[in-house]
Amino acid sequence: MWWGRSAGGRWTGDNARVIVDCAIYQNGCRTEGPEDLSDALDAARASGDAFLWIGMYEPTEQEFEHVSREFGLHKLAVEDALTAHQRPKLEVYDDSLFVVLKPVMYDEAADTVTTGELMLFIGDSFVVTVRHGEGAALAAVRRRLEHEPEVLRHGPTAVLYAVSDAVVDHYIEVAAELQADLEELEAEVFSPNPSDSKNTAARIYGFKRQVLEFRRATNPLLQPMERLAFGEVPFVHEHAQPFFRDVADHLTRASEYIDGLDRLLSDALAAHLAQMGVRQNDDVRKISAWAAMAAVPTMVAGIYGMNFEHMPELRQVWGYPVVVAVMVGICLGLHRMFKRRGWL
Amino acid sequence: MWWGRSAGGRWTGDNARVIVDCAIYQNGCRTEGPEDLSDALDAARASGDAFLWIGMYEPTEQEFEHVSREFGLHKLAVEDALTAHQRPKLEVYDDSLFVVLKPVMYDEAADTVTTGELMLFIGDSFVVTVRHGEGAALAAVRRRLEHEPEVLRHGPTAVLYAVSDAVVDHYIEVAAELQADLEELEAEVFSPNPSDSKNTAARIYGFKRQVLEFRRATNPLLQPMERLAFGEVPFVHEHAQPFFRDVADHLTRASEYIDGLDRLLSDALAAHLAQMGVRQNDDVRKISAWAAMAAVPTMVAGIYGMNFEHMPELRQVWGYPVVVAVMVGICLGLHRMFKRRGWL
Amino acid sequence: MWWGRSAGGRWTGDNARVIVDCAIYQNGCRTEGPEDLSDALDAARASGDAFLWIGMYEPTEQEFEHVSREFGLHKLAVEDALTAHQRPKLEVYDDSLFVVLKPVMYDEAADTVTTGELMLFIGDSFVVTVRHGEGAALAAVRRRLEHEPEVLRHGPTAVLYAVSDAVVDHYIEVAAELQADLEELEAEVFSPNPSDSKNTAARIYGFKRQVLEFRRATNPLLQPMERLAFGEVPFVHEHAQPFFRDVADHLTRASEYIDGLDRLLSDALAAHLAQMGVRQNDDVRKISAWAAMAAVPTMVAGIYGMNFEHMPELRQVWGYPVVVAVMVGICLGLHRMFKRRGWL
Amino acid sequence: MWWGRSAGGRWTGDNARVIVDCAIYQNGCRTEGPEDLSDALDAARASGDAFLWIGMYEPTEQEFEHVSREFGLHKLAVEDALTAHQRPKLEVYDDSLFVVLKPVMYDEAADTVTTGELMLFIGDSFVVTVRHGEGAALAAVRRRLEHEPEVLRHGPTAVLYAVSDAVVDHYIEVAAELQADLEELEAEVFSPNPSDSKNTAARIYGFKRQVLEFRRATNPLLQPMERLAFGEVPFVHEHAQPFFRDVADHLTRASEYIDGLDRLLSDALAAHLAQMGVRQNDDVRKISAWAAMAAVPTMVAGIYGMNFEHMPELRQVWGYPVVVAVMVGICLGLHRMFKRRGWL
Amino acid sequence: MWWGRSAGGRWTGDNARVIVDCAIYQNGCRTEGPEDLSDALDAARASGDAFLWIGMYEPTEQEFEHVSREFGLHKLAVEDALTAHQRPKLEVYDDSLFVVLKPVMYDEAADTVTTGELMLFIGDSFVVTVRHGEGAALAAVRRRLEHEPEVLRHGPTAVLYAVSDAVVDHYIEVAAELQADLEELEAEVFSPNPSDSKNTAARIYGFKRQVLEFRRATNPLLQPMERLAFGEVPFVHEHAQPFFRDVADHLTRASEYIDGLDRLLSDALAAHLAQMGVRQNDDVRKISAWAAMAAVPTMVAGIYGMNFEHMPELRQVWGYPVVVAVMVGICLGLHRMFKRRGWL
Repeated sequence: MWWGRSAGGRWTGDNARVIVDCAIYQNGCRTEGPEDLSDALDAARASGDAFLWIGMYEPTEQEFEHVSREFGLHKLAVEDALTAHQRPKLEVYDDSLFVVLKPVMYDEAADTVTTGELMLFIGDSFVVTVRHGEGAALAAVRRRLEHEPEVLRHGPTAVLYAVSDAVVDHYIEVAAELQADLEELEAEVFSPNPSDSKNTAARIYGFKRQVLEFRRATNPLLQPMERLAFGEVPFVHEHAQPFFRDVADHLTRASEYIDGLDRLLSDALAAHLAQMGVRQNDDVRKISAWAAMAAVPTMVAGIYGMNFEHMPELRQVWGYPVVVAVMVGICLGLHRMFKRRGWL
Repeated sequence: MWWGRSAGGRWTGDNARVIVDCAIYQNGCRTEGPEDLSDALDAARASGDAFLWIGMYEPTEQEFEHVSREFGLHKLAVEDALTAHQRPKLEVYDDSLFVVLKPVMYDEAADTVTTGELMLFIGDSFVVTVRHGEGAALAAVRRRLEHEPEVLRHGPTAVLYAVSDAVVDHYIEVAAELQADLEELEAEVFSPNPSDSKNTAARIYGFKRQVLEFRRATNPLLQPMERLAFGEVPFVHEHAQPFFRDVADHLTRASEYIDGLDRLLSDALAAHLAQMGVRQNDDVRKISAWAAMAAVPTMVAGIYGMNFEHMPELRQVWGYPVVVAVMVGICLGLHRMFKRRGWL
Repeated sequence: MWWGRSAGGRWTGDNARVIVDCAIYQNGCRTEGPEDLSDALDAARASGDAFLWIGMYEPTEQEFEHVSREFGLHKLAVEDALTAHQRPKLEVYDDSLFVVLKPVMYDEAADTVTTGELMLFIGDSFVVTVRHGEGAALAAVRRRLEHEPEVLRHGPTAVLYAVSDAVVDHYIEVAAELQADLEELEAEVFSPNPSDSKNTAARIYGFKRQVLEFRRATNPLLQPMERLAFGEVPFVHEHAQPFFRDVADHLTRASEYIDGLDRLLSDALAAHLAQMGVRQNDDVRKISAWAAMAAVPTMVAGIYGMNFEHMPELRQVWGYPVVVAVMVGICLGLHRMFKRRGWL
Repeated sequence: MWWGRSAGGRWTGDNARVIVDCAIYQNGCRTEGPEDLSDALDAARASGDAFLWIGMYEPTEQEFEHVSREFGLHKLAVEDALTAHQRPKLEVYDDSLFVVLKPVMYDEAADTVTTGELMLFIGDSFVVTVRHGEGAALAAVRRRLEHEPEVLRHGPTAVLYAVSDAVVDHYIEVAAELQADLEELEAEVFSPNPSDSKNTAARIYGFKRQVLEFRRATNPLLQPMERLAFGEVPFVHEHAQPFFRDVADHLTRASEYIDGLDRLLSDALAAHLAQMGVRQNDDVRKISAWAAMAAVPTMVAGIYGMNFEHMPELRQVWGYPVVVAVMVGICLGLHRMFKRRGWL
Repeated sequence: MWWGRSAGGRWTGDNARVIVDCAIYQNGCRTEGPEDLSDALDAARASGDAFLWIGMYEPTEQEFEHVSREFGLHKLAVEDALTAHQRPKLEVYDDSLFVVLKPVMYDEAADTVTTGELMLFIGDSFVVTVRHGEGAALAAVRRRLEHEPEVLRHGPTAVLYAVSDAVVDHYIEVAAELQADLEELEAEVFSPNPSDSKNTAARIYGFKRQVLEFRRATNPLLQPMERLAFGEVPFVHEHAQPFFRDVADHLTRASEYIDGLDRLLSDALAAHLAQMGVRQNDDVRKISAWAAMAAVPTMVAGIYGMNFEHMPELRQVWGYPVVVAVMVGICLGLHRMFKRRGWL
């Protein structure tokens, strides 16, 4: 057997690192097949209901050349498949369908979202999947499919559905993680402890960037999914339309979720600004109240510090204690008044 | 009779908790029917103008399996019906129509909005309703319909209309509750008493979240309602279009209402920010006025506290009273001036 | 004659309060007709070019029942006509056209906008107008039409045109009133007198609510008017399209006006916020300048209030006057400097 | 010759003030024609390739009556042509095309934008232009056209093109003037001199109003221009489509320009707010630094102003100079520290 | 050979400065051809698969006249090609296609974006390229194409594709540069050092202007690219559609990128405002803490500076040191408290 991770076939010598998995599926079951790629493809075509599925990881131009020639992939699609940083899209060529998906990953530790890339070439009897970056558990999708022969029986369409379903379902999970992060952030914004909010603006802004990154993965995919769900796309079974409709529906949900997060973040930033204003008002009032309580004794003391010869109070034995008592009394009175007015 | 809440029929053993109500309706009237589900469905189909309506509450996969097999429900719809957190939608399958509605509930005490889920499978002669969460008074709708045989006579379409009409009408009621809440909030924003506005930003933000939650229930429903109102949807009588148009119209009203609330909340947050600024300006002015009234006697007292040998005033008998009178005079003058300028 | 305000005909007994006016129009002229409603309608239908126009004010269900049965009005439209708080809309039924308009009124004293409701049922040879709330001068429209037989000759279409034209023209008048209010508000926002702006935020917010209320009346009407202007609507003459196009055009103008007001109000709120900032900066600077002018003499006096034995200045005859002169000099210098820098 | 400004023909007696210019054009050249309006129109029609062009200025209903009757203008278009404050639009009637344009004028001195109105009636062999307000140099367009017979040869279409081209080109010029104004405003917003920004918010707001006014002239014209550029419009040569496409393109450019100005103004207002914050922070820091430099000597002087009998320093000869030196030293140290931290 | 930069042919005398390069391409290869423009064009047309490519730089009307006459270019397109400041567009005329592109350039030193103009006339067997401003490396595109005869073989379409591909690819590069600039700006906004943020608002605003300028180049190009990618455009091979689809896809990516930058800049401005608020709160607290520490000794000193005869403490030897110790103790206590509360 020439395919598979550990195989040492003729042309896989250089590609061992690059070809992650490769198999022929007939009637939904993984089968043996000829060692050569062309022969395998011919065999798959001949049998009518079989197809070849090659999974690759960040191939170079040289490494991809043999595959693209064998399957007659379009030059532009091949270029896109080799370079990362594509938009999600669906492109129909004469011999194949080219789909770009952008799976997202959530880094728990750093609360950041990163995006990878997943390209699929769908032909009459082949699927080529190319992965860039981490976070797209294609192997898991393949394993799951190999345990569901009744699904895999539908050929390349089933692979496209299973992969896009897995990617979109992960969107919803990541969106839920972000929702949890937002709730933490809200607690920070409305925290009564001012030292919590030193970097709140920076955190909200950083969150906005994550959401924008997420959006770049999900929103451009809406239109391709609608085409798969409602339009006529070659190499895709018409019967699969309700399934793609389901994926499109989940995608719309993820997208609406993300839009909601974005709006709430803008509102949170505005609320943070308002909270800053409220806090400053509170601080200014509190500071002023204490200042008033210090200013009154200072003023009174200043008056009795005047050097007039004829100030009868200065001569009295009770002068000093009475003045001090008056100072304390005024301060207590002010304290009580400010307390009642909520300044302290 | 095998259906109904208290029935102990053959297959309802496990389902008693789950099947809330179940009946055959013929000519708009609840009738007796065979005990077995298949037989009941066959009977309903045979009679031509009868239909079977089963109402379920949060069924598990096992519990729903029998029903979905019997009515030939689509696998994807069944999956959606079993898991909550769906978007409102209308999906057409070969054998049935699948509608998801999201009723909203308003918690008076906490001023919060929560959403439930209501799924309907509409076939040629059956309706299956599945409810998740609280707040969807399906039983009330059924009771009302059973008293209006002339409506119920129109079959599954009538059930779909009655349910969606009830859900949408409740939207408008909840929107009115939120309107009342907004008015309270406005009073808080523009209250002259500053201690009222400590948490105003948090309240406005929380309100925004409620509105977003509400929006997620109403806005995605607009398009399915339009399809029912204008398009051709199988298993739905064409004559019902004006009725669904009416529902769509009420839904649009609720949706516009919610959008208006959302805009007003943004404006309220901006107005709150401006009010904070006005209040701070007022406070700073008031504090400064009092500070000025304390600073002047302090300064004057400081001058007469200087130890120069040749300060003729200090020798005068009238020196002290005159200086104190001047201090009081300046303070009164300042007080009057600040009062006139609106600083106090 | 059985119709008219003061008539005491057979079925108007209960309806006297409710039926504001009622007449048959033939060839554009008000004519006599049979006393009974059915007979009157039959007569109008028989004559071919005549129609019956009944005007009602807030009828109850019982009061409207006879009319709706006689003219074969659709149940849903009747429900809408009996309850206020509808959206503007145009609904086509088999036997009649149902139009909801929301006239707006402007209360000069309170600077508020309120909306009423105006429903029209248009049939082949009848018009039923139902009014809720104040502010829709239907009687004026009818009087004007009765003086323009060449218009009224076009039948129910002419009534629909005249009523919607009057409602939309009033929108433009109210928008102009609001424009004038906005100009007052602008003067307040940019007033140099700070005490003017205590409630500016509240007034802008309140204005926004008026605009939102207005918008709810105008915007949903755009689409029905377009249908009358461009589409095929039963019971409406095709020749009337340019006239409805004119109304639609005026409506668009009112709607753009309102949108412009809304944007300007948002800008005014932002400008108010900025003005608050400018004013606070000014106040802080002014207060600080005066504080500096008080702080310097206090500091100098403090120095000469120290009790050192060896302070030669204290012994000098000129000591006191020189120090006071220096204090006054510094204060004058500071005053001049602050004046020049615009702090005072 | 009965037409023209100075003509004293039969029916121009009253209209001399109103009819600015009037001529028959044949083969692109101004020609003589019969004195009576009907005869002139008949002559133009008879010759096949000739047309009559009447230019009017703010006609009253009476003044316009003769023209509208003669050319069979639609009643609604005539009403619109007589009242100013219309939206730009294109209306097709049986006998003529009615176009409303809103030329804008820029007042250099006041930096304000005002709009006029220009109505065109285009028929098979006539053009009636009606101008309201200043700023539409129709005479200049007519003169230019009279020097380009090869353009004028295309009849009424050429006039419509030339007029709309002139109006739209002027939009771009005015937009460039506003751009220059914006640059002045930006300099004001970011000026380091605070006294420059007292009225910045008011100026930005005023600018926003100008932009809104401009927008009301340009944006509603986009759709009519698209119809002329792509659709079938009666009385307009199909060959003229690329020319109207060019005008539509310029109009889109003006409109995008205006939208860009509007966005930048919002950003400028936000930046102004942020600048206010920066400035206030700077001021508060500067004021506090000076206050600290006054507070320290006051505090020290207060200590040595205490009346304790046993304060050995007070007895020393060097006591006073050392304390004053310490005061000065602390002040200089503070000054240096604040300078280094950017507070001064 | 009459064309080329150094050629001194018959009509290139005046045009040497203006015609940057000019050649006939046959079968993808640069060939010799007749010296005269008409003859060259005739030769290209005769050979069927050849085409003539003239590249010009800011031609004047006179300079362009010969070319436009020879190739039958449309008058309006010629006018647009001669004046800069056009919108990107695609215009179809009878004899040729006219495309305007706006390449952007990024000035590393000034962090500014400037736009140039690039016009292409595409005919059956000719391409005329006109460049305004710097920054469009047309020569590089031509050189690259001359090394790819298999692409150039597709004629004028290949030139249009190569040029628009180069322009759009450069958009993405410039967008990446702006992204790097944004990251610098973010560091400035959230810098803990306040002196960094004096001009942050001005820098964000300036950045917004760059983005707006960029947007004016990219967004209007989306629609023309879609037409090339999906529609039927004369003089463009249908087979080239996937290639233009690729360009349109890259353009959409650039456009989404720019939109993302714009949103982030608005958020950065809001975050800057919030940071200003946080910083002011911090400053006010810090200043107040120090003021409190100065006010307490001043008040205490004032009390013992009073001139009462009966103040027993004044007589004690330990009076002075104890009071000073108390002052220091209170100050240290306050310092500690403020430190713990995060005010210092």
